[in-house]
Amino acid sequence: MPETRQSATDYQAHFRGALDRLHGERRYRVFADIERVAGRFPTALWRQSDGTSRAITVWCSNDYLGMGQHPDVVAALTETARRVGVGAGGTRNIAGNTSPLVDLERELADLHGKEAALVFTSGYVSNQAGLSTIARLIPDCLILSDAFNHNSMIEGVRQSGCDKAIFRHNDLGHLEALLRAAAGRPTLVAFESVYSMDGDVSPIGAICDLAERYGAMTYLDEVHAVGLYGPRGGGIAERDGVMHRVDVIEGTLAKGFGVVGGYITGSAALCDAVRSHAPGFIFTTALPPAVAAAATASIRHLKGSGAEREAHQRQAALTKAALAAAGLPVLATDTHIVPVMVGDAEACKAAADRLLERHGIYIQPINYPTVPRGTERLRITPSPFHGEAHIAHLTEALAEVWDALALPRAGTVFAEAAE
Amino acid sequence: MPETRQSATDYQAHFRGALDRLHGERRYRVFADIERVAGRFPTALWRQSDGTSRAITVWCSNDYLGMGQHPDVVAALTETARRVGVGAGGTRNIAGNTSPLVDLERELADLHGKEAALVFTSGYVSNQAGLSTIARLIPDCLILSDAFNHNSMIEGVRQSGCDKAIFRHNDLGHLEALLRAAAGRPTLVAFESVYSMDGDVSPIGAICDLAERYGAMTYLDEVHAVGLYGPRGGGIAERDGVMHRVDVIEGTLAKGFGVVGGYITGSAALCDAVRSHAPGFIFTTALPPAVAAAATASIRHLKGSGAEREAHQRQAALTKAALAAAGLPVLATDTHIVPVMVGDAEACKAAADRLLERHGIYIQPINYPTVPRGTERLRITPSPFHGEAHIAHLTEALAEVWDALALPRAGTVFAEAAE
Repeated sequence: MPETRQSATDYQAHFRGALDRLHGERRYRVFADIERVAGRFPTALWRQSDGTSRAITVWCSNDYLGMGQHPDVVAALTETARRVGVGAGGTRNIAGNTSPLVDLERELADLHGKEAALVFTSGYVSNQAGLSTIARLIPDCLILSDAFNHNSMIEGVRQSGCDKAIFRHNDLGHLEALLRAAAGRPTLVAFESVYSMDGDVSPIGAICDLAERYGAMTYLDEVHAVGLYGPRGGGIAERDGVMHRVDVIEGTLAKGFGVVGGYITGSAALCDAVRSHAPGFIFTTALPPAVAAAATASIRHLKGSGAEREAHQRQAALTKAALAAAGLPVLATDTHIVPVMVGDAEACKAAADRLLERHGIYIQPINYPTVPRGTERLRITPSPFHGEAHIAHLTEALAEVWDALALPRAGTVFAEAAE
Repeated sequence: MPETRQSATDYQAHFRGALDRLHGERRYRVFADIERVAGRFPTALWRQSDGTSRAITVWCSNDYLGMGQHPDVVAALTETARRVGVGAGGTRNIAGNTSPLVDLERELADLHGKEAALVFTSGYVSNQAGLSTIARLIPDCLILSDAFNHNSMIEGVRQSGCDKAIFRHNDLGHLEALLRAAAGRPTLVAFESVYSMDGDVSPIGAICDLAERYGAMTYLDEVHAVGLYGPRGGGIAERDGVMHRVDVIEGTLAKGFGVVGGYITGSAALCDAVRSHAPGFIFTTALPPAVAAAATASIRHLKGSGAEREAHQRQAALTKAALAAAGLPVLATDTHIVPVMVGDAEACKAAADRLLERHGIYIQPINYPTVPRGTERLRITPSPFHGEAHIAHLTEALAEVWDALALPRAGTVFAEAAE
């Protein structure tokens, strides 16, 4: 018999303890229960704890262009489901390699001007499985990773088991110093185009210059840019005319394209090698054919139409201008992302709660660990469907909340808190 | 300047080299391009390299009950998409926590008689993120893992960073020895109910006896059993009357339920703690509401109807009997999975190719690393929609292929090859 017995209650205490710590740090997250309404985006229904629903305006969706409700996208999903059913029925290898998914990969390779593409169940998995597998296939690979890279890239780097070095965010001098120190060693530079929480953009061309000079490979995450930038929605690299210089472009089908899933694009050999070696690709059920068809419809639409991108940029600029004019602490960005700084987790949550309950405006508070402590914020994402009346309503509501809660105004310096 | 320069060509050589090694070991996989036809399952269209399509019979789908084409499931998907659009638009925390997903989690908790459930983008991610997070939340946790556990569980164990020990497959004596050796230490026993490649079943009740005796927690993967076993489709644990004794039940929405996605169920504190700590849950876009609604429709149907489960078992038994009568080396199983052994990677691929090209029967060859070398096989999955004529056709086709390729007959011993 065992000397001591660990009862079932002890295990539960560990889980309760972990939750208590989150509550204690004011980091416990409550998910708002939301029902979108096709054709009425950004209006949605908020299902409250008493079961009743209330119409609200969503200002924090990553369906940046509202493509999730586009008639072509909805029709592609529903028609394909009626024709072929719902699930893929298996992994890509075993019965799940459906024609709509094969067609989607061709569409993505074309979008980025690459030889091939490979679709994963999510953008998260595409970075985690893609980055780790690519790096593992290169003997003695060193990964140089931007300090602000998304958690999915960090996990990909970690799971590769390769040596890594972090370069300061968008710091070309630091990157060059690390490249110089690694001279002669196979090196993979991993970075993003649009960083989602600050809304800033990386100097892709200059990073490619360095990579070429020092013989490094480049891996670029464009999840917050595909569909949104470039003449055909290829992302910031397309806009900047440097798409052909990046070795691997990773993207998502879940944000600008309004569906779900992720992908990498690159050379035929690279995509085939990842296809053949990545456990997170091999051992998982393929995306449903109807989902693949919806994504293809969205990509095709945005390849041919710049109207959504123009309206998106225009409404984002109008939103920034209106909030800045009201004295709100808007972080200056070059992109569609509009962070309004709060600088405290509890105040950030209180502001979001008041916006939702009093004004019917839904903006999820962004706290640690998504952003550093001391830089808590409301992250606002205007879309082409947020019109002038929406912007005016948002501005008034934020001003009321900022007054009521005595939150910091424009001009405040928000710095990462010491741990 | 760097001393040596690694040109772009060198990187490509690594990817080509990795592919060459697979070709050399006869392990390079070719995905058949398949288009399913709703209402005609298991018939599908095989899109050939010349672009023409040909009707074939799928005998290797994990849409075990054909629920992917069930009218209620297709209708739930299409109606929800028309009502709310396609993508969720964000992570669960940020704008993506849609009402159909909240409802799905309630349905899953009810299915397994647990306080709560948590949905992930895939079954793979649910094991990888769920298992690793649960183990990490238990200080000094030791994981005892069945030797035949799926890659997603192995990845979850690895990513937890916890100590682990592997017990011989379904070996209660070995498991008890490891539990005894770990006495007093928090321990998580991770295992499956139906092992997908051999089709055998674990002694869940006896494992729970041991876990209770030694104060261990249990984590059970029921992906090849949910929807298929138990009075309401709760899986083998429900069938055996031991569902309430298992701490965590993990399952998939992509096989018996015919949709896509994965989940865990357990105590409210456990699910809430995983929800709050698992990066693979937090930082990824939520499943589309239409997909969640389709899964809920499938679960509800199978909770109330045993007809699909009865037909499934009946057709699987008829298939096994027919193949055995024809002298084919069918692995004896207690489940719906029908492995026909080949024992050689090249012969297995040749058999599958001949079945598809000559007989219009699609069964993907199962080679290393999915199964040990020397135990290569065709894994056949009869469904309620594989009727007598399908079974007769399959039997004749396999007999022809076995004769033509001089493959091993019933009575052959297939042993794992020495590496």
